[in-house]
Order: sequence, then C-alpha cells, then structure tokens
Amino acid sequence: MAPGRVAVVGTGLIGAAVALGAKRAGTTTVSGWDPDPEALGAAVARGAVDEPAATLADAVRGADLVVVAAPVAALPQQVRDTLAAAGDEAVVTDVGSTKAAVCEEARGDARFVGGHPVCGSEARGAAHASPEIFDGATWFLTPLAATDPRRYAALHAFVTSLGALPVAVEPEAHDRIVALTSHLPHALANLLLNQAGAATIDGHDAVAAAGGSLRDMTRVGGANPRIWVDIFLANREPVLGALAEHRRRIEQLERALASGDGGFLARWIAEAAGHRRRMLAEAHRDPGALQRLRVHVPDRPGVLAGVTQALGAARINIEEFDLQHFSPERGGVLTIMVSGEEQAARACELLEAQGYSVVVSSVL
Amino acid sequence: MAPGRVAVVGTGLIGAAVALGAKRAGTTTVSGWDPDPEALGAAVARGAVDEPAATLADAVRGADLVVVAAPVAALPQQVRDTLAAAGDEAVVTDVGSTKAAVCEEARGDARFVGGHPVCGSEARGAAHASPEIFDGATWFLTPLAATDPRRYAALHAFVTSLGALPVAVEPEAHDRIVALTSHLPHALANLLLNQAGAATIDGHDAVAAAGGSLRDMTRVGGANPRIWVDIFLANREPVLGALAEHRRRIEQLERALASGDGGFLARWIAEAAGHRRRMLAEAHRDPGALQRLRVHVPDRPGVLAGVTQALGAARINIEEFDLQHFSPERGGVLTIMVSGEEQAARACELLEAQGYSVVVSSVL
Repeated sequence: MAPGRVAVVGTGLIGAAVALGAKRAGTTTVSGWDPDPEALGAAVARGAVDEPAATLADAVRGADLVVVAAPVAALPQQVRDTLAAAGDEAVVTDVGSTKAAVCEEARGDARFVGGHPVCGSEARGAAHASPEIFDGATWFLTPLAATDPRRYAALHAFVTSLGALPVAVEPEAHDRIVALTSHLPHALANLLLNQAGAATIDGHDAVAAAGGSLRDMTRVGGANPRIWVDIFLANREPVLGALAEHRRRIEQLERALASGDGGFLARWIAEAAGHRRRMLAEAHRDPGALQRLRVHVPDRPGVLAGVTQALGAARINIEEFDLQHFSPERGGVLTIMVSGEEQAARACELLEAQGYSVVVSSVL
Repeated sequence: MAPGRVAVVGTGLIGAAVALGAKRAGTTTVSGWDPDPEALGAAVARGAVDEPAATLADAVRGADLVVVAAPVAALPQQVRDTLAAAGDEAVVTDVGSTKAAVCEEARGDARFVGGHPVCGSEARGAAHASPEIFDGATWFLTPLAATDPRRYAALHAFVTSLGALPVAVEPEAHDRIVALTSHLPHALANLLLNQAGAATIDGHDAVAAAGGSLRDMTRVGGANPRIWVDIFLANREPVLGALAEHRRRIEQLERALASGDGGFLARWIAEAAGHRRRMLAEAHRDPGALQRLRVHVPDRPGVLAGVTQALGAARINIEEFDLQHFSPERGGVLTIMVSGEEQAARACELLEAQGYSVVVSSVL
C-alpha cells in the first residue's frame, strides 16, 4: 500500500521523480520543500509536488514518508533537520549516493533508513522528471540495528512500487561498492582525459587521434563538478582505498610487461573477459551468443530510422546499439549487438541489401 | 592513380579490406598470400584477392604496392621476407598497430613506409571485409629519412583513395600516441574489470550492481588475447611509460582527496571537461550545443525503429545514440544526443507523444 502522504525535501530531478512515482503508486498528497524556490516551482509545474511548503518543517509535518533528496554535501544537515521535524510514525529516507555519513547522522533513530537509487545523476531539475528512471535500477537500502523493521518493510515496498530493485547493504559496504563501481570509473575517466589531453607528442595532439576505446573510456569524464566534487569528498576513504588498490594492480601489470610475461597478460585478459561476461549476463539472456555488427553510416537524419526499421520489421531484437561520430562530413560508425549467429547473418543481409557494409564479430 | 598491381601479405579482415579498397580505387589485380590457407580462401571468396599465391615470394612478385597485414608478433619477420622478395620499384607498407620494431627492421630500405589504420581490430576474417572501415579513420604513416619521397607520396595517395586521413609521424612518437590513446585505455578497462570483478563486499558481488559508468569504462575490456598480448608486448616501453604516468596522476589525486582539497578536484574535473569538449569537437559541429536525452524503452523488436523514425521524420539529426540493457524483463535505457536546445525540446515532445518519458541534460 502506498504511503498516503509523502514529503520530498529537495525537489530536483530525483526528488520530483520519487514524488511522481509515489503518486503513480497511489499516494494522495505530496508536499515538498527546496531551499531554491525555482526548483520547488518547477516540481509544482511538473505535477510532482501538490503542496509546496515555505519551510522544511512545514513540508514534513504529517507525512507518512519523507524522502530527503538533497545534494550529498547538504545531506547530513537536512536529514538531521528532517528527523527533528518529522512525526513519530514517519519513515524517513534519503537518496544520496554515499551512505556512511548520513547514516552516522541518523544512527539510533528507528525512523530512518538510508537509500540510494543507482540511476545516473548528470541531469538536473524537475522539468522532465519521471519515475521511469527507477525502472529496473538497483536501489540500495541501508537499515541499521536501530531501524524499525516495520518501517524498513514499508520503504522496501515503496521502492519496489517505483519499479526499482531494493538491495539491503551495510552503509560502509555500500560506500565501498559505489567507490569501486561508480566513483573509481569516474576518477579514471578524468585521469585518462587529463593524461591524454595534456599530451603533445612530436607535435601531435594525442586526443585528436583518439580511437573508439579512448572515447568509450571517457564518456563519464568531466561530469558536473557541483555534484562530483562533493561525492568524491564525501566518499573519500573508500575512494582512496579503491585508488590504492588500482595502483597496486597497475604495478603488477608493469612488472609483467617489464619482464615480457605473455602468460600473465593472457591470464589477465582472460580474467577480464570472464568478469565482463558475468556483467553482461546481468543484462542479456545469453551473453555468449552476442554478435556485434559494425556499420558505417552517413551523418544525416533518417539513417538510423532506416536501419532500425529494417531490423524491427524482420523481428530482429537489437540488444545494444551505439552510434559514434567520426565527423559531420564523414558520418559515423553504428555498432549493433544482436543475439545469435543466425540473427546476425539475417541482420547483415538486410543491411547489405540497403547498401551498407557490415563487419560482424563475436562480442565475447 | 591507383597502383596497378597490389599484393596483400596476410589476408584477414584488414588485408582483405585494403584489397577491396584498392580495387574500388582502380587497381587491376590483387595477389595475396596468408600462412593460413583458409584465411586466403576466404579472401578469394570475398572477391578481395584475385590471385592466391602459394608463397609470400610468389605473391609479391611484380607488385607495385605490397601491404603486409600480419599480426603484430609476426610483422618484423614478414616485412623482412617481403622486402627480400619485392621488386626494386615496389612500395612496401604494413598495417600493424605498433611501428618502432617493424620500422627498425626495414630501416635503410627506401621502399618501406610503415602504416597503421586506426579502425578497431576486434573482428577477424575476410568474410565480411569492407573498405568502408577506413572511412574517415586516421591512418598513421611513418616515413623515415631513407624513405623515397616518391614512394611516400604514392602511399599517401593510396591511403587517401581508401577514404582514410593519412597522418605522418615518427615511429617512436606513433607508439607513444597509441600507448596513450588505445593501449592505456584497454589496460585500464582490464584492470578495472579485474578489480571490480574480484570484489565481494559484505557478500555483495560488486559487478552485479554495476551502473552505466562501469559498463562504459569496460566495453573494450577482455578483448581478443591473441591480438592484445602481442600488442602490449610489442609496445611495452611506451605502455610502461603511460602506466607510470597514470600512477603518478593517481597519487596526485590521492593526495588531494586525503587533504580534502575540493579546489583541486574542481579544477581537475574542469580540466577533464575541457579535454572532453576538445575530443568531441573532432566529431561534432558544436559540442557545446549537444543535448542528451535519456529514454527508458522496453526490450522488444521495433522499439528503436519507432523512436528513430519519429526523429528522422521530423528531420532531427541524431548525433550519437546508445542503447544499454538493464535486463530482458525490464528493457533498457536509450541515450540520444542531438544538437541544440530547440532540437532537444522537439525530440522530447515527439517521444513523449509516443508515451516515453525523457530526461534531458546538457552534455558538456
């Protein structure tokens, strides 16, 4: 059963999406507050917030569930203020991307359960907020010893009603997991951009000759500093641990290269392929069957429609799809993943019939 | 003017693609040899090789241009054999992804110019070879002091006729550039997969909770060890240099995190954003105008066709396009990049009219 009255503290993209999801699930009234009146107005305009409040305390009064969706740096203070203002029966949670500090702040309060939906954070503002961003997303919950089990169960049900997958975890373990799976990748993307970007080799700008691997590896680089400086600082101990281990692994690779140890390299690549297969298995029915088709396409409207329409009409399901540009003049490369050699051969035939050349390879 | 007679030594994907490109440009006859008779047969079946030869010497006899397309480890030997067998007037080149060793092998021979088309290497076999893989690709050429300028000019024209962009560079500089822009990204993808893949944190498999950033950062991980062990070994000095610098940059980040230096982090992210903007500028007319649309879509045939068709019909050009799966049950996330806020708003409207929810954000 959806909570009857939900309060959202912080009405940006995530807060507004939670509000809309709650209403979809049956919540009658959403109240909201944001330190920025414009952000609150946008959430009202989007239909996410029914009752805009002048203060945090006004917003949370009488709420069954309070969701604190503040930026990481403001989170502990806003959770403290929320717990002080919320009623005895309320469930209080947050959606911050680190958990140890905020859980420490709330420790001992039976009403609080930390939370973190893993659904990207680069966009801002409630204008286009939608609960669909939670579809299928992992939503970490960090119940503590003091947490009231009934409240935890209610929050678990709420998160499920938003379409997400609740995963319970210790706050410190959570922070180590995201350090490894999100903050380290972001850090490496920035490190790689700054290393390659600074390099002028024999007069050549290294970045100008970048191939697909550098572009893939730096897609998340240079992400919004207003969000990411605070995330790195808030999670600095686990991130430091992940960076130190990464350095040790680099040193191990350096030793293998220095001694020309091809056996190590082969095992090291095979191990990576195994982990990648396991990661893809989360998303695909049969990752071993995945076939990759590479197609060169010109840079004009309608090209993608033609390609995807031909495959759709033949009932060929596109498992993954990627278009990267070379340049406006030369068009780009389309990478299409389909399942099974038979589907790949049919797709290839259809595309060649449209005049495209296709290179097929196995993904794993 | 296209060389009349081209010989291809090594008739896998790249060798066959070069052969087909030569014929498209006007070459009359392509001879070919491969140590693997099946690979040679496939190139003949594809129409890439007109005259399959029993030996390397037979293949290169009388050729105006010889392209050695052997795996990196076999390359120096095959270039030596080719130079011994080729005529006095021939131009000899290769397509290996490292250049110092093979150029050292050929040093002093006026007929040789090293080459490296940057066009991906994960696919194998001539069956689907096409010269379109060279469209718009950087094609490094490494002329030496001893290289005959006429021959260099002929090879430059040939590479251009294949649709690629010839870029002249010193062999050692080439190897440092690719160490930084290709081999280091590949190494980091493997390191990251092995680090995250090995981690079980409080009973949680870190990789199972992987968000988009980890998936993006590991797309090139676990790539074909038959190719990559040799590439890492062949280019180990520059790769060692890139890894050592990467470690130093990690240490710098660790110091900033340890001292809570938010100013450093903000500058470090802004620097990365600047390099990323510069890299995107190579591919897009106006990278600052790029808008990202995120759309959740179900996992069934025809969905992509509907989306791309709607945008194509409205003459909205899709600059980049990416579909990643959550799972077969839950569908995936479509990321679409278009240029300009006006196009983004129209695309958003069209997709919302189809019942999708869209989150828009600025790319840079």
